[in-house]
Amino acid sequence: MVGVGIVGYGYWGPNLARCVAESEGCKLSAIADMSPAALAKAGKRHPEAALFADWRSAIAAPDVDAVLIATPVKFHFEIALAALHAGKHVFVEKPITQTSTEAAILIGEAQKRNLVLMVDHTFVYTGAVRKIHELVTDGTLGDIYYYDSTRINLGLFQRDVNVIWDLAVHDLAILDFLMDTVPAAVSANGANHVTRGPDNMAYMTVYFENGMLAHINVNWLAPVKIRQVLIGGSKRMIVYDDVQPSEKVKVYDRGVTLSSGPDESYKELVSYRLGDMFGPELSNREALLTEIEHFVDCIEHKKVPVTSGECGLRVVKTLEAASLSLRQQGHPIEFAPLSKAS
Amino acid sequence: MVGVGIVGYGYWGPNLARCVAESEGCKLSAIADMSPAALAKAGKRHPEAALFADWRSAIAAPDVDAVLIATPVKFHFEIALAALHAGKHVFVEKPITQTSTEAAILIGEAQKRNLVLMVDHTFVYTGAVRKIHELVTDGTLGDIYYYDSTRINLGLFQRDVNVIWDLAVHDLAILDFLMDTVPAAVSANGANHVTRGPDNMAYMTVYFENGMLAHINVNWLAPVKIRQVLIGGSKRMIVYDDVQPSEKVKVYDRGVTLSSGPDESYKELVSYRLGDMFGPELSNREALLTEIEHFVDCIEHKKVPVTSGECGLRVVKTLEAASLSLRQQGHPIEFAPLSKAS
Amino acid sequence: MVGVGIVGYGYWGPNLARCVAESEGCKLSAIADMSPAALAKAGKRHPEAALFADWRSAIAAPDVDAVLIATPVKFHFEIALAALHAGKHVFVEKPITQTSTEAAILIGEAQKRNLVLMVDHTFVYTGAVRKIHELVTDGTLGDIYYYDSTRINLGLFQRDVNVIWDLAVHDLAILDFLMDTVPAAVSANGANHVTRGPDNMAYMTVYFENGMLAHINVNWLAPVKIRQVLIGGSKRMIVYDDVQPSEKVKVYDRGVTLSSGPDESYKELVSYRLGDMFGPELSNREALLTEIEHFVDCIEHKKVPVTSGECGLRVVKTLEAASLSLRQQGHPIEFAPLSKAS
Amino acid sequence: MVGVGIVGYGYWGPNLARCVAESEGCKLSAIADMSPAALAKAGKRHPEAALFADWRSAIAAPDVDAVLIATPVKFHFEIALAALHAGKHVFVEKPITQTSTEAAILIGEAQKRNLVLMVDHTFVYTGAVRKIHELVTDGTLGDIYYYDSTRINLGLFQRDVNVIWDLAVHDLAILDFLMDTVPAAVSANGANHVTRGPDNMAYMTVYFENGMLAHINVNWLAPVKIRQVLIGGSKRMIVYDDVQPSEKVKVYDRGVTLSSGPDESYKELVSYRLGDMFGPELSNREALLTEIEHFVDCIEHKKVPVTSGECGLRVVKTLEAASLSLRQQGHPIEFAPLSKAS
Repeated sequence: MVGVGIVGYGYWGPNLARCVAESEGCKLSAIADMSPAALAKAGKRHPEAALFADWRSAIAAPDVDAVLIATPVKFHFEIALAALHAGKHVFVEKPITQTSTEAAILIGEAQKRNLVLMVDHTFVYTGAVRKIHELVTDGTLGDIYYYDSTRINLGLFQRDVNVIWDLAVHDLAILDFLMDTVPAAVSANGANHVTRGPDNMAYMTVYFENGMLAHINVNWLAPVKIRQVLIGGSKRMIVYDDVQPSEKVKVYDRGVTLSSGPDESYKELVSYRLGDMFGPELSNREALLTEIEHFVDCIEHKKVPVTSGECGLRVVKTLEAASLSLRQQGHPIEFAPLSKAS
Repeated sequence: MVGVGIVGYGYWGPNLARCVAESEGCKLSAIADMSPAALAKAGKRHPEAALFADWRSAIAAPDVDAVLIATPVKFHFEIALAALHAGKHVFVEKPITQTSTEAAILIGEAQKRNLVLMVDHTFVYTGAVRKIHELVTDGTLGDIYYYDSTRINLGLFQRDVNVIWDLAVHDLAILDFLMDTVPAAVSANGANHVTRGPDNMAYMTVYFENGMLAHINVNWLAPVKIRQVLIGGSKRMIVYDDVQPSEKVKVYDRGVTLSSGPDESYKELVSYRLGDMFGPELSNREALLTEIEHFVDCIEHKKVPVTSGECGLRVVKTLEAASLSLRQQGHPIEFAPLSKAS
Repeated sequence: MVGVGIVGYGYWGPNLARCVAESEGCKLSAIADMSPAALAKAGKRHPEAALFADWRSAIAAPDVDAVLIATPVKFHFEIALAALHAGKHVFVEKPITQTSTEAAILIGEAQKRNLVLMVDHTFVYTGAVRKIHELVTDGTLGDIYYYDSTRINLGLFQRDVNVIWDLAVHDLAILDFLMDTVPAAVSANGANHVTRGPDNMAYMTVYFENGMLAHINVNWLAPVKIRQVLIGGSKRMIVYDDVQPSEKVKVYDRGVTLSSGPDESYKELVSYRLGDMFGPELSNREALLTEIEHFVDCIEHKKVPVTSGECGLRVVKTLEAASLSLRQQGHPIEFAPLSKAS
Repeated sequence: MVGVGIVGYGYWGPNLARCVAESEGCKLSAIADMSPAALAKAGKRHPEAALFADWRSAIAAPDVDAVLIATPVKFHFEIALAALHAGKHVFVEKPITQTSTEAAILIGEAQKRNLVLMVDHTFVYTGAVRKIHELVTDGTLGDIYYYDSTRINLGLFQRDVNVIWDLAVHDLAILDFLMDTVPAAVSANGANHVTRGPDNMAYMTVYFENGMLAHINVNWLAPVKIRQVLIGGSKRMIVYDDVQPSEKVKVYDRGVTLSSGPDESYKELVSYRLGDMFGPELSNREALLTEIEHFVDCIEHKKVPVTSGECGLRVVKTLEAASLSLRQQGHPIEFAPLSKAS
């Protein structure tokens, strides 16, 4: 039975707490938050947990074996490092840290101490993304040409990170899970229309090692909520619409075929294939529940999480490059391709 | 009564012919196409028109006062120039020419001879875009922050132009009509997955003089047809979905408000406004019919078309810059802002 | 080459004329309409056809082998009968006649003279309904439990027939084509809110011989256009949404299974099956074109049309029963089951 | 502070418990359920509540002032009556009872003892239905012509009540709230395809005193979930789609106008009005929370609930008539119009 302490009981923390409480194999031992109001709410819902105004005390509690961190991003590194130093397993909200340097330090620290370090890339644990992973991996889609995501809504404006760090991080996490290939260069454009703070809308193109193109459209100032991903493959293509209550994933047997006729030796002929559409039944189990159980399983059986610290690091490196390009109106930033073999 | 000759009876030509035949104020005098099969089809539907295998003869016909050009783009310039030289008014498919130099020559030639030169920016004449223009112009939207378009489908792969010249041209034409401001810089990313020909998917960001951002997502290799434009204004925002059979334009009374409380002198507070949605009734008159009648009206009353040769030139200049950026992975191309006062 | 005369060039006649003109195997010989304006329009579009103000003359024209009737319903019988008497094949708009007696007379007359009598049940010739027919016939759906249609929009109010005769006729025609079974009883409810004329909204339930239930919701006073049919089968179920530009037919591998456990000898257990969804690619050939060609083929090869006069008669009998029930607030009208073996 | 006891912790009970726990003005004192597993779950989530295997003991508990009943329908009457006898206020799931006789007894008992008797017609407390009520009441819609609801999905098959008692009850509750008029006659059709139990699909038409027509399409064996209501008024019409995540209510400024021209003295001319559409912003507060607070408010301030026992009675009377008609294939059942002045 893994004793779990949660640091941060604001927007996401209550979901973590509920899932820990409902999961087998772990128990909710402690909740820490600076806000007395948040702590009171936590206490009402979770009388079984000890409450702490100070996260250091929560981490130090002897019945806390693992720490779940759901604070603003800027505190992730300090708390995660302290937890690892205290010999506790760590589960951190996305993005794992504010910088790739910090992420690398956490990874090293966890390895040295044989502790589990996991990043909360929630979408990776949804029925939809799991099914897409299956379709990518078993060759149903063929070669993957592109991944094109629109992830927009009204709010919530963040003060300390731009919209890419808040929303595009989901797509980078999904891509890291789905694809065999890694980013090689990034180009990003954006604007800030409202505050003197970070950009509230951005477009980000990622060039992958194998030629695949990913594009991510993120916006905090959109009139409607859109969560739509198109994935183009050589054999089939996917539309993944996450705001639909059902039929979130549709697979289209469509594409183009290239042929060269005998008479037009240098000419290429494009013909179009229009076939059936297929909407696989998806598991609708709550992703966070699956994720928490995976975390516990990794702790108990010394496994590497599907969304390990390394995944978190690769995502942060891409975010850093995107922010750099954003300030240069799309000037492409190339970097040493991110290894997936670490 | 304006006598009209049509050059090119392939994909779009039959629509032009039908609209000319149905319009008051003009008559269909001639149709030219190299293909005997196309000509035969034209003859069956339009027994009133003279048929020509050679476009030069069609232009020369004495009862042809105006020439409509619906050939592949690479022939636009030569045919349009010949028509102007022959003293005929000219209506050219989009994009007006393959290069901005060619467009400028046509403009000069038309001015010298007092002839009407119009480019077929069809969307400008739709009920939807006309209504949006009204909402932009009368201040309903407030300041325009962004224009974000997704214009994708399966096919038709072009051999001589990339997808930006084929599809993004529509959005640039709409933007040229809607907005007071002009492009200042462009960044574009794209890829070609299928043929050795031009890019079949691209993302294009246009930085405007006044800070507005436009983004255009175009793709010939998409599983579904999407024609969706979001326009973000300081007061209201629009979703324009052109594949809907009805309610194509929705206006959302949503946005954010910035305030600074007395106690937090340097802090900005963002609050969200969630108001009603409004779907104006739109004219569903065929745009092309309206456009042909506007062309005839410009000829008869010596007016400047809403989509003049200058509009065509501004659009081509932006397309040229986008193609340049496309080859440099999004490296931004700045140019002397395009004048709208010409 | 079958010479075709069209009587009635109002709402639907121009579509018939266009399809006849585009079809192989027939030519448009004559068009008749009382309205000079309609005739003038017909003449402009179809200079190849002789024009008649009097339908009797059109029928009598020697190059007219077959007559297509697209007049108001009340004229169908007289014109069709005259055409059969003149030895011409006949194609009549739906519903075939105003009464079942009239339909029976036409059928007898056509049989006596070996002429083709066909009713224009257009939907039967669409790619969507053809595909559904395939799925019903090959057992994909299993036993058919119900057919539930909503066919509503704003307008067009008819003066001489109620909404059932105008809109529900489509569903009865589709049902007649799809199903092996025939109607046994009908219950209908409706209301007239606007004119002193016929009911503008109605709900109609048809009990079929084999236990299948059909329900048809029709309305001329609806805020939006809906064309949605649900078909429930023991193995699979269909949603057929005809206003969608694509994916009109979706097949769901869903249903319930009944089992009785050993311990609960009299208890029935219902379990739910939630499987994949499947959207077959549909032909998007224009139905009317297919239909006209089928009519010509029946004439040339002495075949019985898929939508024969008998189909028209069965549909009219059901409409008569529905109108009777309508006046009695849903009181069920049973009738001798309609034979399909005629 | 009203002490609340909940009887029944199966499907709906946990929602009641959560809302009671989150509401001001009341506290969760007791939960009763026969199932030990259900009780264990209740205890884990609500350590503050006393647990009872026997509902009679829960009702008798001194800190229980009000009883919420969420058991199968067949137990409603006995438990509610016992609670009223014990001097407790009562809140019952829909439908209030199995028969109108039972409902009348509960109403009398509550009146005699000055206790609040409320039925859980949840939809009445949603932002959508509240907004529609506003639009009906303030005359925006004009005269109401019809209410047309489709409420279908796969499952949950009930064993003791037919689909009308399970699903149409929602629409009857909404109608009772929205409209000034009351039912006068009912016609219903249905079928049972799966079990030997109650009908799993049904169509129900309600004729109202003032001529309004309501139609309710309910089905447990549908491939997809639909929750769509159309309301036709003389001035405007509504589409209320409850499965949409946003824009649930759309108001259309559409309709027909009747005029009689001078030359056609007996002829009526119908013209169509196609105006703007309007989607009001809706409160998305949880309906059940609002409802619980209203119940507490009624107890504390001796108010009559919006969804009183009388509402429940009227709904049950209409359900009884519908069940009667259902067995007679739609034969209309007239009844003494239900009073709203009781």
